[in-house]
Amino acid sequence: MSASNLPKKELFELPEGVIYLDGNSLGCLPKGVVDRASETIEREWGGQLIRAWNSADWISLPRRVGDRIARLVGAAEGSIATGDTLSIKVYQAVAAALKMRPGRKVVLSDSGNFPTDLYMVRGLLQTLDGGHELRTPEPEQVADSIDESVAAVLLTQVDYRTGRTHDMAEITRRAHEAGAVMIWDLAHSAGALPVDLAGCGTEFAVGCTYKYLNGGPGAPAFIYVRPDIVSGVEPALAGWMGHDAPFAMELFYRPAMSTERLRVGTPPIVQLAILDEALNVWEGVRLEDIRKASIELSELFIAEVERRCPQLTLASPRDAGKRGSQVSFAFENGYAAMQALIDRGVIGDFRAPNIMRFGLTPLYLDNGDIMSAAEVIEEVISEELYRDPKYNVRSRVT
Amino acid sequence: MSASNLPKKELFELPEGVIYLDGNSLGCLPKGVVDRASETIEREWGGQLIRAWNSADWISLPRRVGDRIARLVGAAEGSIATGDTLSIKVYQAVAAALKMRPGRKVVLSDSGNFPTDLYMVRGLLQTLDGGHELRTPEPEQVADSIDESVAAVLLTQVDYRTGRTHDMAEITRRAHEAGAVMIWDLAHSAGALPVDLAGCGTEFAVGCTYKYLNGGPGAPAFIYVRPDIVSGVEPALAGWMGHDAPFAMELFYRPAMSTERLRVGTPPIVQLAILDEALNVWEGVRLEDIRKASIELSELFIAEVERRCPQLTLASPRDAGKRGSQVSFAFENGYAAMQALIDRGVIGDFRAPNIMRFGLTPLYLDNGDIMSAAEVIEEVISEELYRDPKYNVRSRVT
Repeated sequence: MSASNLPKKELFELPEGVIYLDGNSLGCLPKGVVDRASETIEREWGGQLIRAWNSADWISLPRRVGDRIARLVGAAEGSIATGDTLSIKVYQAVAAALKMRPGRKVVLSDSGNFPTDLYMVRGLLQTLDGGHELRTPEPEQVADSIDESVAAVLLTQVDYRTGRTHDMAEITRRAHEAGAVMIWDLAHSAGALPVDLAGCGTEFAVGCTYKYLNGGPGAPAFIYVRPDIVSGVEPALAGWMGHDAPFAMELFYRPAMSTERLRVGTPPIVQLAILDEALNVWEGVRLEDIRKASIELSELFIAEVERRCPQLTLASPRDAGKRGSQVSFAFENGYAAMQALIDRGVIGDFRAPNIMRFGLTPLYLDNGDIMSAAEVIEEVISEELYRDPKYNVRSRVT
Repeated sequence: MSASNLPKKELFELPEGVIYLDGNSLGCLPKGVVDRASETIEREWGGQLIRAWNSADWISLPRRVGDRIARLVGAAEGSIATGDTLSIKVYQAVAAALKMRPGRKVVLSDSGNFPTDLYMVRGLLQTLDGGHELRTPEPEQVADSIDESVAAVLLTQVDYRTGRTHDMAEITRRAHEAGAVMIWDLAHSAGALPVDLAGCGTEFAVGCTYKYLNGGPGAPAFIYVRPDIVSGVEPALAGWMGHDAPFAMELFYRPAMSTERLRVGTPPIVQLAILDEALNVWEGVRLEDIRKASIELSELFIAEVERRCPQLTLASPRDAGKRGSQVSFAFENGYAAMQALIDRGVIGDFRAPNIMRFGLTPLYLDNGDIMSAAEVIEEVISEELYRDPKYNVRSRVT
């Protein structure tokens, strides 16, 4: 496939009989992770105990992992802190942004943003009780909705349902023109397409690592701060690991003079070690090649599914340049159809109300996988296999 | 030792040549954890991929682990939510308490509290910018400092440096008399001594699981909410996992009708599985027996160290009833002396400015360990081995 050396299936533990089109929800298991976890648990924790903070260098692991993520999203060394969850990182970024624009009362997002981002903002605004407002216009209206009342613009670059992308450079420019602080959520961007954080000039970015970065279930999140503004960022979540000298046990908080000030509590060492190992698959991989391969896969997928299944309506932008690394179709019986697909080894997911979502991860998918998946989708849709009552039992997670 | 069946050394992977007196900082590795982590990573993540949220019941893991912790701290089933870090849980509890007492402006803690608790409160108060104040009297003055200006009392039951305990029942009573909300930090209590959350009537409690609960480095934290007040608790950190129906992807936040509303983002599944496995060592263990054994060990330790090393001054309460499961000694050369001890396999830790801290964990320590440790301490102190310059190089973590 293409001129690049993708895919790299040999670097992953891929289950037999499965075509996995849900790497945008939980990435596959990279080889080496099981051994690395065992080493961290048995040799480091078990054998070194508390000494491992130094002897196994646990203490610098959050920063080292942050630097590896930085290289994948166009950020400078030292500009990304890791830990906590994406929800927490959203809260930190918005809280800091509001402190940077004390006279402004509006947080602008869009109605397509992932719900937890909006929940976290509303929770913050209710906590502040300072007359702030969250506005959520349609995604297409966001750029024109930025005015001088806006303190912060919080957007997810790639829509979790449709895959529609925002233009990071252009919207950041518009935010800055209006004097607003920009915050990008890279949940569906990091590891999926080239991102140029430094180039676009955004003040903050946040992201998770269990999707395209394959960090495993509940892997730590990350937050980026533009280096020139770090010293003015007030941490709302002023935890000891963001202190300039955590082990001095000072009664008063002095934030670290780097992005590390956005760390909070004791880092999740085992999950960080797993993520660190998982990031090895990116050695020698260029995001430009990932993007090119992703577009090839998605164009093929769209063509095949549309040809075979006229019942499904493309819910993603047809223009590949405006689409992330996923393809979504709207279908009235989408929930049941997805269960029927999963039952046949084609794993995507469903997002309410009617979206069948397929993630395309060029690290471990090739054209053959796409053709096989399209065949199964055709079978499920054309033979109406989704009408089997067993596929209409709603499980707790889809 | 005593009538109980402690210690249970056979349940732990204890390194050769080490007497570990730092289980109050990072507990030892329980057997079975390596296999459980491998199973979670290889079979569940690797083999089931996204389906594991249902097939391996990841989705209920945070609650199941919470229920197991609840049994160890005298809390009802369903009253403890797990995840995040202790710092985050402190923030949630204090933010919720302030909403419950809108007319009051004081958070009362004490000067002996662990720094991150105080940092998180100050970060919250600065974020609120609502004229609140954090007061930190000496621990002995706390009870008499509770008045009707106090919205919330936030105390760590066992002082991290000295091991001095607060009387939970009495201080909670005093807080409630004054109309204040009580928040207990159980960092050095959970798994160390009997705790009766339901009995003392506290509104909130928070804790970590990597100390006496042996959950491993960066293990998830927990938060307790008294069941009768849950529906009035406003989550400041309103993440999707605290939503009543996370996967409905609603634009507006509706908190779960249980303590689960204090969950935030996607749970750290691997670390939760490790913690779940680690909690197996508590099967059949009564906290009363832990407490009895802990007192026996600490009395022996104090007697032996004082007899052998008059240079060390007991920094913990002499009355075992007022002491948690650790013993601390003040010593001018404490930092270097601790390095010399660690070099000889007796692992405790140092807390600024001059505290040598020894944790007593009856699950994996016996009288023989205490006698051996005392001999090494005597050697280091009486022969002034701490004067070796190599022990005065300050490492990043002690």
